[in-house]
Amino acid sequence: MSQNRSEISQLGEFGLIDHISKPFHPVNASTIKAIGDDAAVLDAGEAFVLLSTDMLVEGIHFDLSYTPIQHLGYKAVAVNVSDIAAMNGKAEQITVSLALSNRFSLEAVDALYQGIKSACDNYKVDLVGGDTTSSVSGLIISISVLGRIAKDKVAYRSGARSADIICVTGDLGAAFMGLQVLAREKEVFLTNPEMQPGLEPYEYLVSRQLKPEARTEIIFDLEEAGVMPTAMIDVSDGLASELFHLCKQSGVGVRIFEDKIPIDQLTFETAVEFKLDPITCALNGGEDYELLFTVKQEDHERIKKHPDIHMIGYVHERKDEKIMITKQGNVVALKAQGWDHFRDA
Amino acid sequence: MSQNRSEISQLGEFGLIDHISKPFHPVNASTIKAIGDDAAVLDAGEAFVLLSTDMLVEGIHFDLSYTPIQHLGYKAVAVNVSDIAAMNGKAEQITVSLALSNRFSLEAVDALYQGIKSACDNYKVDLVGGDTTSSVSGLIISISVLGRIAKDKVAYRSGARSADIICVTGDLGAAFMGLQVLAREKEVFLTNPEMQPGLEPYEYLVSRQLKPEARTEIIFDLEEAGVMPTAMIDVSDGLASELFHLCKQSGVGVRIFEDKIPIDQLTFETAVEFKLDPITCALNGGEDYELLFTVKQEDHERIKKHPDIHMIGYVHERKDEKIMITKQGNVVALKAQGWDHFRDA
Repeated sequence: MSQNRSEISQLGEFGLIDHISKPFHPVNASTIKAIGDDAAVLDAGEAFVLLSTDMLVEGIHFDLSYTPIQHLGYKAVAVNVSDIAAMNGKAEQITVSLALSNRFSLEAVDALYQGIKSACDNYKVDLVGGDTTSSVSGLIISISVLGRIAKDKVAYRSGARSADIICVTGDLGAAFMGLQVLAREKEVFLTNPEMQPGLEPYEYLVSRQLKPEARTEIIFDLEEAGVMPTAMIDVSDGLASELFHLCKQSGVGVRIFEDKIPIDQLTFETAVEFKLDPITCALNGGEDYELLFTVKQEDHERIKKHPDIHMIGYVHERKDEKIMITKQGNVVALKAQGWDHFRDA
Repeated sequence: MSQNRSEISQLGEFGLIDHISKPFHPVNASTIKAIGDDAAVLDAGEAFVLLSTDMLVEGIHFDLSYTPIQHLGYKAVAVNVSDIAAMNGKAEQITVSLALSNRFSLEAVDALYQGIKSACDNYKVDLVGGDTTSSVSGLIISISVLGRIAKDKVAYRSGARSADIICVTGDLGAAFMGLQVLAREKEVFLTNPEMQPGLEPYEYLVSRQLKPEARTEIIFDLEEAGVMPTAMIDVSDGLASELFHLCKQSGVGVRIFEDKIPIDQLTFETAVEFKLDPITCALNGGEDYELLFTVKQEDHERIKKHPDIHMIGYVHERKDEKIMITKQGNVVALKAQGWDHFRDA
């Protein structure tokens, strides 16, 4: 028998997920939605339970030379809570599993859990379990999160319909620019360890990278405004990549407007300083953990005054047309160039 | 400020878990039981939901030089299903997260998922999510499992009461002896790669190590017999260690009888061949994934004919007295010398 070897990098992360999940077919009546959204949706009787999981690997997802370990703990929880928010749900419990090499002291573990606790307190999430083990090298954190949602309130990626308004919260590209700043300061430090890090002017960007927040208050605001998103996803891999997910699963296309994409002034200026195109950073920079969602036209009035929700375009039915209208009025095709840990690493 | 460094190994795995979990206090009404049992117990309205998680790290929990990767996939699911069974529940969904170095081909990943699928099919569990990422070195598998149970059926570790009968399923020590056999064959192979592995006579032991099963049918049998365990735990770290968990959480002591501890003939003979005490292997060898539980005296009649349930002793109220009566009638104190990945690794 010939031994063929295929590389995982040929498929990429999303290709690998498709490949892996193909042979699996749910058999339990309680499984409402399995792989393919921000969280699995499971029938718990009166309500649905949401389940999601994320794994963070040292050297791939974080670099402890510029990441305070308590921020890492906070972020690990926040990104999981964000996955539940992206289903329009409320996170309630997490489990935290750690693999640690003997490089890590008990004090380092305590600092990590201080960050985890701070996030648990902030998002009102209970730590209910986990696993701790040693590792051969480095730190790996795996968090699972359980959320809860009324059965008629789930926002899947697949619900966007023609003429829906596309909304995004906060601003985009800041976490990506924060990473660029941190990487540059690390280089400077490695070249000259006497040099003081010059992070202060970039504080907002660095904090977006190191200590992102899940936009749970948006879920609350939407409910209070009586708005049910037709589709939702969180921006972890970049706006363009997430729009592609929404389009694929909803069977639609999108038209967005460059001048409507929210970019913080500091993100803009820092991108220019780094000789990067700010709009490319906003479209393709990952880890913003903002919420991207669609609402019906008739909900326009209900959200237009929200200071942190930006309407950036609309959904149309030509599913092959995912385009951006530039400030100059040109039409450009969007490309999903988000993060791919198998290709980029 | 002085920088003290404390080693995690000073606490050990269980000490670390106690240390980590101390500052956390549940705030959600849905959190019925957080850290400290085989699974967390969460109120889902009509029923309880059970949530547990396990992380397997290459070089710590498994050695791919003698572990077929599809068996590893099977085992990773089985040990999680076992945690749900140990609460008297039924596992229904899992998430699987993987970190993989570029040493792993797509064919290896496919083989791993064949094992995962085989276990999912066997235990009727749905794969509903996960995360895939690259790693700097080796393979890490993190699985979370969701189960379901009627609210009046949960078997906690804390429910054992004086005079309850202590039961254990199957036989003990086989997985540990399987590991010894595999480790010896690896040594032989490293010394002389021409040598054929001599695993055949030890097939039962090796299969207990490489492809353990969760005892889900016992849960079914107990329910059919009308027996509700007063306390339950699965034997992952060794019988003695698990008895200590039951005693600690139930506030009781135990008396077990050496001649009642189920040891397979091959386990016994192989232990002797390896110059190991068979009873020590049964008490302290890990990874059997049998169920250890207590039942009320009055349930004796209902289970005494079950071919795979063994009554090994009873619970008493002197919580400092955890003892074994030897075949010679001597009284020896039990010691919890189970696996500790931080100390043993």
